[in-house]
Amino acid sequence: MQRILSTELPRYAGQQVRLAGWIHRRRLLKSVAFLILRDAAGLAQVVATGAAVRRQLDALPEETVVCVTGTARANPVAPGGVEVVDPAVVPLGDPAVPPPVDLYRPEPQGALPTLLDHAPVVLRHPKLRAVHEVAAAAVAGYRSTLDGQRFVEIHTPKLVASATESGANVFALDYFGRPAYLAQSPQFYKQLLVGVFERVYEVGPVFRAEPHDTVRHLAQYTSLDAELGFITGERDVMAVARDAVAGMLDEVGARAPAALSTLDCPVPEVPAEIPAVHFADAMELLGEPADTPDLAPAHERWLGRWARREYGSDLLFVTGYPMAKRPFYTHPDPARPAYSRSFDLIFRGLELATGGQRLHRHADYVAALAARGETVAPYQSYVDAFRHGMPPHGGFAIGLERFTAQLTGARNVRETTLFPRDLHRLTP
Amino acid sequence: MQRILSTELPRYAGQQVRLAGWIHRRRLLKSVAFLILRDAAGLAQVVATGAAVRRQLDALPEETVVCVTGTARANPVAPGGVEVVDPAVVPLGDPAVPPPVDLYRPEPQGALPTLLDHAPVVLRHPKLRAVHEVAAAAVAGYRSTLDGQRFVEIHTPKLVASATESGANVFALDYFGRPAYLAQSPQFYKQLLVGVFERVYEVGPVFRAEPHDTVRHLAQYTSLDAELGFITGERDVMAVARDAVAGMLDEVGARAPAALSTLDCPVPEVPAEIPAVHFADAMELLGEPADTPDLAPAHERWLGRWARREYGSDLLFVTGYPMAKRPFYTHPDPARPAYSRSFDLIFRGLELATGGQRLHRHADYVAALAARGETVAPYQSYVDAFRHGMPPHGGFAIGLERFTAQLTGARNVRETTLFPRDLHRLTP
Repeated sequence: MQRILSTELPRYAGQQVRLAGWIHRRRLLKSVAFLILRDAAGLAQVVATGAAVRRQLDALPEETVVCVTGTARANPVAPGGVEVVDPAVVPLGDPAVPPPVDLYRPEPQGALPTLLDHAPVVLRHPKLRAVHEVAAAAVAGYRSTLDGQRFVEIHTPKLVASATESGANVFALDYFGRPAYLAQSPQFYKQLLVGVFERVYEVGPVFRAEPHDTVRHLAQYTSLDAELGFITGERDVMAVARDAVAGMLDEVGARAPAALSTLDCPVPEVPAEIPAVHFADAMELLGEPADTPDLAPAHERWLGRWARREYGSDLLFVTGYPMAKRPFYTHPDPARPAYSRSFDLIFRGLELATGGQRLHRHADYVAALAARGETVAPYQSYVDAFRHGMPPHGGFAIGLERFTAQLTGARNVRETTLFPRDLHRLTP
Repeated sequence: MQRILSTELPRYAGQQVRLAGWIHRRRLLKSVAFLILRDAAGLAQVVATGAAVRRQLDALPEETVVCVTGTARANPVAPGGVEVVDPAVVPLGDPAVPPPVDLYRPEPQGALPTLLDHAPVVLRHPKLRAVHEVAAAAVAGYRSTLDGQRFVEIHTPKLVASATESGANVFALDYFGRPAYLAQSPQFYKQLLVGVFERVYEVGPVFRAEPHDTVRHLAQYTSLDAELGFITGERDVMAVARDAVAGMLDEVGARAPAALSTLDCPVPEVPAEIPAVHFADAMELLGEPADTPDLAPAHERWLGRWARREYGSDLLFVTGYPMAKRPFYTHPDPARPAYSRSFDLIFRGLELATGGQRLHRHADYVAALAARGETVAPYQSYVDAFRHGMPPHGGFAIGLERFTAQLTGARNVRETTLFPRDLHRLTP
């Protein structure tokens, strides 16, 4: 008999079925034993009245993997309205050692460090698993949106000869006797590849030797990068970023409805045009000095509430960040050269994405580096490529873990990373 | 006016159009100038007769980025049967410095090291670009196939506390004062996550400090990993691997027909069941001693030809590799314990994928490590997880660069990597 999933049970009422999964919970009463079986799709109730099966279940602790054959029977109080009766239970491995954290409780029990220490097993908790099902759906939506706008997926080197963004916060390693670094972003490569494919995206790990121990920083995270050529300004990039986020949310709704319901987390609407506020105007709203160089987390939270109030939107673009705090490849705003053609996308008060138009003329790169007192040498092959014809272009990067955290209400990006890496954590 | 792509020209015959792209080639004749414009989609011919435009083109070398507005006119000898006449040309940047390798020649000129040195620009060559369009389509097909079989996409740590596969060929780095390594594969994580999601896949970089300078090894490559639980043996894994490869080839055909035609590379048929030969039988066919521990590249090539001849198949599974050469987590064949429940998938004579059933009982892990004289300590959290109930499971990994090389006829995996990393190469 073919195995079916727990969620398929309702279709089989009255029939013989075969389930397989983990013993999520046993309740061994005097004359009846209830077994809750967990599989990838959900939970199923199995009811055993025979003495032999009850004795057998007595010796099979929670998390033991079993195959259950029995009869599907309607029962309005069982999950999905159908349970399995007269079961034959066959273990598919040894009886499990009960996990360090009970997985059958409605909420995962334990402080975050404990949960992370035991992630290989604790992630099985339906509420923890659901977070990552949401993340997987979001990435699928990101890709399908960009595929539909003729972006080409790329895979770029994670081992690089010089730091991408700045010399700080970079992991160094020995590369066959030479110094190398872990890429902090695919920034240079995605720009260069606009010269090849016009529109590219990459979903991959980026590395930051982040010395700060905060709820929103990780040493490795998944960056959803995109870059596109032949733009007329940062607005074209913002339009694609808007579509990407909308596509992510749509796909979460379409592909992970069960996870959303497990997490009790509605998917927000994305306006056809996400409201945008210029950095200078944001400073005025915030009552901060006009020469404030960047937004602090508290500013972002305030602006998130403001966007909600003013526009009914969970998303807000802040545009025109001061050049001073943006990387050298940032395109200035010709009308207000102290400000840039860049943006951040704020999702419920947290910076989710950063992007903007980049420089595309070789001479501008040389000048921008000189103005910062930097030499071209560490960026030579990147800067040289701009001699050979590059269109006006721009792009953005979305942090997957932050996106998932803001969507699911997680307070710490570690909750939205399968096996987080930070200042203190290199295992499991 | 909205920009159109070169391939859309035929739909606009008789109308005003706007193209944008790179000056691929100019031919400046006495009374007429031909401009071949290259964009992401292909090439378009622009014909200029006015003296002013011809003078302008004279100052715009190959690779300059331009916007061209003009009239689309049918011309049977132009690419796509339509050209642009009476053009107005607007440069979108400075005149380009001609690239180190001419991109307009039908074949990329230059030895592989030269092409790789200048990859940021040389990849623009239509034949080089096409290879990566094929790769992108293949990855999309891999994902959609597994998505359709309820796999969940995962993102696992690339920074790990101990070597995954063996202590050799691993990149070491300083991780906030502690030793860490770059993951050689997501093997342990994907297995652990079978306990969470039942079926998982990951597309991501893996790292090998590969001391050999061969045409089939890289220090970083893109691994298409999958792992699934509740299997009855390695045949279930092989069936998924077959579907994944078939899905990759289908999507290449569907999504990248222009690239395939540029490369003159047909997509092979995948049999509903890929032929399989047991390792022991392969040794007999090859006339090698029965105790040969592994296949050499020459064996794989011979078997590839044999499969073509015997079964008309470009793909062949070799099953039951000797345990001696397989990693400790490999499941032995209970009927022939010197052989394993593992397989390689050979594509046109090259190992493309490796997979098999894994151990799933804690006691088996402890015994397997002891038998190899290894301690559990370096693998503690991985091995411990098997105490807590893991189903029979297995998986496989496909090397994207090898797949693309075998499909497109590239002789070196460096030709199918955007920016390869090897013993000698860390840039660009």
